Amino acid sequence: MTSVLVLNGPNLNLLGTREPGVYGAQTLEDVETLCRNVGKELGVDIDFRQSNHEGVLIDALHDAGAAVARGESLGVVFNAGAYTHTSVALHDAIKGAHVPLIELHISNVHAREGFRHHSYISPVASGIIVGLGVAGYEWALRALVAQRTAQA
Amino acid sequence: MTSVLVLNGPNLNLLGTREPGVYGAQTLEDVETLCRNVGKELGVDIDFRQSNHEGVLIDALHDAGAAVARGESLGVVFNAGAYTHTSVALHDAIKGAHVPLIELHISNVHAREGFRHHSYISPVASGIIVGLGVAGYEWALRALVAQRTAQA
Amino acid sequence: MTSVLVLNGPNLNLLGTREPGVYGAQTLEDVETLCRNVGKELGVDIDFRQSNHEGVLIDALHDAGAAVARGESLGVVFNAGAYTHTSVALHDAIKGAHVPLIELHISNVHAREGFRHHSYISPVASGIIVGLGVAGYEWALRALVAQRTAQA
Amino acid sequence: MTSVLVLNGPNLNLLGTREPGVYGAQTLEDVETLCRNVGKELGVDIDFRQSNHEGVLIDALHDAGAAVARGESLGVVFNAGAYTHTSVALHDAIKGAHVPLIELHISNVHAREGFRHHSYISPVASGIIVGLGVAGYEWALRALVAQRTAQA
Amino acid sequence: MTSVLVLNGPNLNLLGTREPGVYGAQTLEDVETLCRNVGKELGVDIDFRQSNHEGVLIDALHDAGAAVARGESLGVVFNAGAYTHTSVALHDAIKGAHVPLIELHISNVHAREGFRHHSYISPVASGIIVGLGVAGYEWALRALVAQRTAQA
Amino acid sequence: MTSVLVLNGPNLNLLGTREPGVYGAQTLEDVETLCRNVGKELGVDIDFRQSNHEGVLIDALHDAGAAVARGESLGVVFNAGAYTHTSVALHDAIKGAHVPLIELHISNVHAREGFRHHSYISPVASGIIVGLGVAGYEWALRALVAQRTAQA
Amino acid sequence: MTSVLVLNGPNLNLLGTREPGVYGAQTLEDVETLCRNVGKELGVDIDFRQSNHEGVLIDALHDAGAAVARGESLGVVFNAGAYTHTSVALHDAIKGAHVPLIELHISNVHAREGFRHHSYISPVASGIIVGLGVAGYEWALRALVAQRTAQA
Amino acid sequence: MTSVLVLNGPNLNLLGTREPGVYGAQTLEDVETLCRNVGKELGVDIDFRQSNHEGVLIDALHDAGAAVARGESLGVVFNAGAYTHTSVALHDAIKGAHVPLIELHISNVHAREGFRHHSYISPVASGIIVGLGVAGYEWALRALVAQRTAQA
Amino acid sequence: MTSVLVLNGPNLNLLGTREPGVYGAQTLEDVETLCRNVGKELGVDIDFRQSNHEGVLIDALHDAGAAVARGESLGVVFNAGAYTHTSVALHDAIKGAHVPLIELHISNVHAREGFRHHSYISPVASGIIVGLGVAGYEWALRALVAQRTAQA
Amino acid sequence: MTSVLVLNGPNLNLLGTREPGVYGAQTLEDVETLCRNVGKELGVDIDFRQSNHEGVLIDALHDAGAAVARGESLGVVFNAGAYTHTSVALHDAIKGAHVPLIELHISNVHAREGFRHHSYISPVASGIIVGLGVAGYEWALRALVAQRTAQA
Amino acid sequence: MTSVLVLNGPNLNLLGTREPGVYGAQTLEDVETLCRNVGKELGVDIDFRQSNHEGVLIDALHDAGAAVARGESLGVVFNAGAYTHTSVALHDAIKGAHVPLIELHISNVHAREGFRHHSYISPVASGIIVGLGVAGYEWALRALVAQRTAQA
Amino acid sequence: MTSVLVLNGPNLNLLGTREPGVYGAQTLEDVETLCRNVGKELGVDIDFRQSNHEGVLIDALHDAGAAVARGESLGVVFNAGAYTHTSVALHDAIKGAHVPLIELHISNVHAREGFRHHSYISPVASGIIVGLGVAGYEWALRALVAQRTAQA
Repeated sequence: MTSVLVLNGPNLNLLGTREPGVYGAQTLEDVETLCRNVGKELGVDIDFRQSNHEGVLIDALHDAGAAVARGESLGVVFNAGAYTHTSVALHDAIKGAHVPLIELHISNVHAREGFRHHSYISPVASGIIVGLGVAGYEWALRALVAQRTAQA
Repeated sequence: MTSVLVLNGPNLNLLGTREPGVYGAQTLEDVETLCRNVGKELGVDIDFRQSNHEGVLIDALHDAGAAVARGESLGVVFNAGAYTHTSVALHDAIKGAHVPLIELHISNVHAREGFRHHSYISPVASGIIVGLGVAGYEWALRALVAQRTAQA
Repeated sequence: MTSVLVLNGPNLNLLGTREPGVYGAQTLEDVETLCRNVGKELGVDIDFRQSNHEGVLIDALHDAGAAVARGESLGVVFNAGAYTHTSVALHDAIKGAHVPLIELHISNVHAREGFRHHSYISPVASGIIVGLGVAGYEWALRALVAQRTAQA
Repeated sequence: MTSVLVLNGPNLNLLGTREPGVYGAQTLEDVETLCRNVGKELGVDIDFRQSNHEGVLIDALHDAGAAVARGESLGVVFNAGAYTHTSVALHDAIKGAHVPLIELHISNVHAREGFRHHSYISPVASGIIVGLGVAGYEWALRALVAQRTAQA
Repeated sequence: MTSVLVLNGPNLNLLGTREPGVYGAQTLEDVETLCRNVGKELGVDIDFRQSNHEGVLIDALHDAGAAVARGESLGVVFNAGAYTHTSVALHDAIKGAHVPLIELHISNVHAREGFRHHSYISPVASGIIVGLGVAGYEWALRALVAQRTAQA
Repeated sequence: MTSVLVLNGPNLNLLGTREPGVYGAQTLEDVETLCRNVGKELGVDIDFRQSNHEGVLIDALHDAGAAVARGESLGVVFNAGAYTHTSVALHDAIKGAHVPLIELHISNVHAREGFRHHSYISPVASGIIVGLGVAGYEWALRALVAQRTAQA
Repeated sequence: MTSVLVLNGPNLNLLGTREPGVYGAQTLEDVETLCRNVGKELGVDIDFRQSNHEGVLIDALHDAGAAVARGESLGVVFNAGAYTHTSVALHDAIKGAHVPLIELHISNVHAREGFRHHSYISPVASGIIVGLGVAGYEWALRALVAQRTAQA
Repeated sequence: MTSVLVLNGPNLNLLGTREPGVYGAQTLEDVETLCRNVGKELGVDIDFRQSNHEGVLIDALHDAGAAVARGESLGVVFNAGAYTHTSVALHDAIKGAHVPLIELHISNVHAREGFRHHSYISPVASGIIVGLGVAGYEWALRALVAQRTAQA
Repeated sequence: MTSVLVLNGPNLNLLGTREPGVYGAQTLEDVETLCRNVGKELGVDIDFRQSNHEGVLIDALHDAGAAVARGESLGVVFNAGAYTHTSVALHDAIKGAHVPLIELHISNVHAREGFRHHSYISPVASGIIVGLGVAGYEWALRALVAQRTAQA
Repeated sequence: MTSVLVLNGPNLNLLGTREPGVYGAQTLEDVETLCRNVGKELGVDIDFRQSNHEGVLIDALHDAGAAVARGESLGVVFNAGAYTHTSVALHDAIKGAHVPLIELHISNVHAREGFRHHSYISPVASGIIVGLGVAGYEWALRALVAQRTAQA
Repeated sequence: MTSVLVLNGPNLNLLGTREPGVYGAQTLEDVETLCRNVGKELGVDIDFRQSNHEGVLIDALHDAGAAVARGESLGVVFNAGAYTHTSVALHDAIKGAHVPLIELHISNVHAREGFRHHSYISPVASGIIVGLGVAGYEWALRALVAQRTAQA
Repeated sequence: MTSVLVLNGPNLNLLGTREPGVYGAQTLEDVETLCRNVGKELGVDIDFRQSNHEGVLIDALHDAGAAVARGESLGVVFNAGAYTHTSVALHDAIKGAHVPLIELHISNVHAREGFRHHSYISPVASGIIVGLGVAGYEWALRALVAQRTAQA
């Protein structure tokens, strides 16, 4: 069974306790459960990870790209958190690893501070879902699987 | 049966003929059919419109806001086209009309010219879906209905 | 009896329901009544209009300019709403139609978002009244009539 | 007989009365006569229009693009007036409608206010003629016909 | 009898001789007479002052704030002159002293040099009147008294 | 017989070999022939020059200004090449020499790199023709002669 | 006994009444008492002043510099208030008077408006203490005395 | 006994050898000794760490936030080094972990290169101490303990 | 005998002690002696003043303007110090008082920090002398007297 | 035998598969072989490393600096990849570790996206080699060894 | 007898005919005569030149630097005209040739277009004289000779 | 035997005397000798030139392009000096002449003034070598010959 990597960046381990007014009350475990349920329905394996380390995220994207090339993965749903706005290295990792990727933000970053309005991920993403809360993970998974199925 | 307004801005009537490399080969009629099919499945009426006139779009948003207030509409899926980047008036219309609204772009605007990177719609949107092609309309409809049902 | 055009731009039809904390609870009908009462006291006819269409506003300014040239109008009180910040065309219409015009904003636009701080109307206005709420219409009318009487 | 659309944007109906020091004393009717005379000489039908409404201009460009595709039109001479500097939607309309188009400005916009120095029309125009006064319409028509004839 | 402070900033003592084409031929004494006449009609005492010293203006605003708190003053009409564009300290004084204040400019600052387009006073003003000439003092006084009476 | 100076700046000697996709396949000799043919038809002598040296171009403009003053020249058609974007000295030469001048660019500079969008020549030109290819020389010559004849 | 100048700029006389949510409820008299108590403990005389006049502050810094040179003062704790962000003259006064100086802000200026993020005082300060509330005066005094004792 | 985390970012392990003219001759071990001595006096345990890895710093801040929530820690003294100027992720970690935190810089960053003038840490810090050299650690510790004691 | 006002702004009283590497070792008294000697040679009375107060400088410029109007003064040599870069009020005072004025800087401000490169005085000065050291006062006096004599 | 550290940053492990049009078809193993061959010829040991972790790169630079100080290393050839454009921490590591370092980029970063045009490494590098492809490693090694030998 | 080079840049050969309202009615020959007369009085030989070629000006500055080094020249009075604002090469020539140089502008460049406000010459000049008209050449010569005599 | 053009721009004739701290003590003759020696070793003829004239450099690049096309030259090593930062014309010359070219700077321009950080040469260079001192000429020659040999 092919898999999808759901990759979460810095501070997402705090979900549920961090600014609930902005991010909601659900924890990252709730998100993982949601993703696994959707994965079951869609018939894909969910590889769910979180790291606060930029290098770990780069490594994970490289691995995902290799898995896609081997036909073992459909791609990535990526919530890059704060690295979205500062990391050219993640931009290059996505582009270099040829990995289909939906960028996701739980909150509406465009309604927050100016330094959250620019994304280095967007120009190399296959699609972008912003501000739909935790439910965005479901839509991102569905969109990625549909997109990849259509291309197959 | 409650309805959803699917509102399309300037030049979207050219869909299918305009830069197919960017926007794909499907026409606006195809999009309408897609939306009506999804609407049937979700049990909502689809009010599908397109206009090249900023004022007509503002009027439509006001009407949608009033319909939402009367409980007759769930909200709007809005592809504002080029007005996304220049119209403070549409920003104000969405905010003033208290209308739940998913912003949608067929192409990945962040991978195109710099003047397409800023959106006046985003800060007042309930969610944003970008670069998923025509399929984005389906996800926007599903996300809007799910979001509104969850709040009800 | 000479007239004054009181011209209102996009979203002002929502007045009273749109962000009452910013714009107050009075409706555009209340504003019209206020203007007509002041007009009676000043002995001028009030031509009160609102449109969400930039082109309709340009046409109205052209007509007003022609009426001023014919001695049938004293000028315009103009609340251009969001078009204030984006419309070079309205700037040109005012300048081209040689129409005396008081620019008016109900709220204090300078205490709001940065994109509301610049006005294309201001450089071609005969005067500017900002942030006095709905009462600003009264002062604008009185100021315009006094200004035009002093010049006559 | 094939036609050329001569399309005029906001405030050009004021020509002759609006800032004669900048735009000259000739009216839009004079321009129409000039264009019709040149058209006769060149053997093309002149479709001469003006509108203050951005949406009407977009619609007209779409129609022109369709006429060009049918072989009934050679293209457009377009004086977009103030919308030149603010309208991404017109940019998209020209690009999306595949319409050969000469951009024209009567005055030397580069010798005026800074906000008139940037044009959203220029990057999608087949040619640009600026600051030659009303005579620019003649050269634009001649250049468009010659250009299209050379390609035929 | 309650009072209103009419406070004038740097160079306004030159009024009547300084750039009459911009500011008119009336002197500051004429303005004071105008204000006193309007004050009599409105039943308020006019405290009319001018200083070229930023510190003196700050002190006066503090005193006015204290007088308002004691119910002895309705607020301030403030023409901050050139300090409008450079003084964060005056911004803080108005905000810190809780003083109702109408900002006033005789000339249309938005039609002049770029460095006159930004005001540190505006975000903390109860209203702004620009470009109505010396008559603006009358409208500012009337607006302030009406505003404060409405709130009482 | 009066003359017109057709002046070409840096790198235009490479025409025909330099980026034919941008500039076309015609050489500068072809352009000279075209200009001489048009000159014959219009009854003016063509003085055709090219230099890669900014100082030589300044000297040529000074000479042309003097010839215009003596009634021996009608003015200049000037393709300043890359100096367009960097040379205040050429701006001053045109202004200081009182020389009627049509600015010309073969390619559409506004559709190329950002550093080609600003011109120091434009604010002092009598007219500007951009993006019409080598044919632009013909229209520039015709426009200059017509403009100067109309003024005579 | 050597002294320290505790110098307070514009609007700090309002402390306790001005925006207590930002600055706290303690008055400038409370701050003076705090400083005198700390001064007693440290064995230094406290010269405590406040002025709304930029010139008075410059004069005070010059005097402090002279006192430091005579060995009668250890330096200055300076809360420049709003002049922090606008006064090159205070920058020059500190540099020119060779006066050791700790810059102090009661509130966290970096969490407030953008125009409070830049300081002309910082580049010439011996240390900077921000956002510790009124207690910051104690730490600034202790740090200054320790720093100067270490150098002695 | 409650603790305080003294957290040091990239390159601070070089202290004493790196640019002694800027940072002084004391090593990070000296700083640790200083902090432990002050900690003893204040009755708090010092948890002293340094890392060149952004992710390790984020993890440490999360742990500190949890310890504060459990009443086992008073907060953090954080010298984020170069990450101060580039890390939105550290900004989010501090905000998300609800951790009281004094930002500290040994050198006067505002007197150095422009890219050191902006801090992503400052808007979420409880206080900021800059340019007091290694002694700043003492004042930061004292200020943090005093601040937290006052709130208890 | 007519006079010239030599006006010195903030911190110039420190001359000779303030950054001698930048400003030289001569004191303001030396400058005054130099000016008086040159004044004697030129047959004009020297009114030599210095103030750290912006308001005092404005008042002095107003007085000088009045003296010029009465034929009792030739104008001003003005070293505005740091106010050069921040004071719109001084700009307005010079313009409003119609006072002939040579702007003077002892050091080469264009070789120093960026915030010293812009002058609000320059656009309203009759001439500007920069970087000639204290000797610049002599040249400014000579230039002003020669300029005014030539106009008489 | 002294060594040289050849340090490679994020995504360089993808070399050969990542955008071959930009980076060429050679893998990082090929580069290592090339470096080892050149090293043999030059009589230096090659320490060849790659990491996607910023912290690991900082640590490696510190170690290299220490090795240089012990006379065991000549310095570093550093391809910092995307961290070139965002990492102040690497800038500080190079400066703080006193390590001679040649900056290297395989592709011509100045011919790519704007965010690749600025380097935080360049101001602290001993030399910079850009756009020579994989062969740049050879020239960097040779240049470093020659430079260090010349200084010895 | 030592000499001074008076060097004039592009378009100054037009003096007297070019914008007399800006530059006055005197020709460059008049300026030369003025300079020679002043030179006689001061006992220095005047080497007076003008060129429109940037390279010729660079060569002349190099020669002047060599003459200064040989003790045959005191330095340069340089009116760089439009190259002032664009030429880094002239900046480098002055710095590289170690040539004492007074920068001179006849008109007040700071009261003209924005692109004339920045000078690449100023940071490397020994003094700057602006806006004193043709008389500025006299003051520049006198200042240069006095400055160089004082240093001798 | 094929040749390589080593082309040097403005002020490089001053090498050895101009800022030796920045550029070193070697003269341009030393550089020529170095290049000739390397050329002999590589078996290529060195055409070594220097000019302060932008036009001369353009002409030389054109000639080199033609020689490359004839197979008589391998390309150019170009130190454009200050024209690097200002000359669009040199950019166009390199691109238009299809000439392989290594850009070279002796000093580390990125560690100097901001206006030296941007290069118009870089985007059209085959490689860039910066900050290696005079030795950079050797590496540039070797790299160019190796690069061209590899392509042959």
